[in-house]
Amino acid sequence: MKAAIEEALKGLSEGGIPIGSVLVHKGEIIGRGHNRRVQKGSVILHGEMDALENAGRLTAATYRECVLYTTLSPCPMCTGAILLYGIPKVVIGENKTFMGAEDLLKANKVELTVENNEECIEMMQTFIQQRPALWNEDIGE
Amino acid sequence: MKAAIEEALKGLSEGGIPIGSVLVHKGEIIGRGHNRRVQKGSVILHGEMDALENAGRLTAATYRECVLYTTLSPCPMCTGAILLYGIPKVVIGENKTFMGAEDLLKANKVELTVENNEECIEMMQTFIQQRPALWNEDIGE
Repeated sequence: MKAAIEEALKGLSEGGIPIGSVLVHKGEIIGRGHNRRVQKGSVILHGEMDALENAGRLTAATYRECVLYTTLSPCPMCTGAILLYGIPKVVIGENKTFMGAEDLLKANKVELTVENNEECIEMMQTFIQQRPALWNEDIGE
Repeated sequence: MKAAIEEALKGLSEGGIPIGSVLVHKGEIIGRGHNRRVQKGSVILHGEMDALENAGRLTAATYRECVLYTTLSPCPMCTGAILLYGIPKVVIGENKTFMGAEDLLKANKVELTVENNEECIEMMQTFIQQRPALWNEDIGE
């Protein structure tokens, strides 16, 4: 989660939305990413998607041994990507400022750990207060 | 659908997976895309995702007036993106060679039209026969 928070802060320092993610395989980080809506004008590079993209093409067997860490509860798109690739475990920094599609993950037997990490909550609360329109755009509202 | 098929064939001619998509707003194509797993080593650029990405940053109000055309039934990731952005209608070329997360779309009141277009079916059947491993990788199997 420390690495995912580092990614989120990197995004923030670039003028972007502070959400970060890392894909971990057998204890090793194989993909890092952060939201790039502002930086790349991207509507699909949420933190989780960016981490998956940066991990590159993997076998189904590898995905099934991975854990995805994300600073914020995964939206429906990122949830869909997790389900597509059969990632069995997701560690979520917090779901207080935004509740993603956790029910759908649970219904598909993805193991979730929600930390409700104070640093993650504080980071998103501050961001949402400062940039509400940008935040709403990112979640399709 | 003709434009989505053109995109799929473009992907095929590049050595890629022949799935194409277009995003249409009030009768006008505002985003075109095709699967770019092979071309860009991308695990997130399915046809639908590429069309959404190429359409760029849109307001929630615009997405809610859009129709997404795709040559193949949308996988869980693309389904999640459709739900995130609240796209109300999806026209699907075919769902005979692959059934995506259509139940999830329907459960979220997305209007689906399945054409079972012969050209789309033939294109995917031929591709899956020729490149089964690549196809399985694209759907996380």
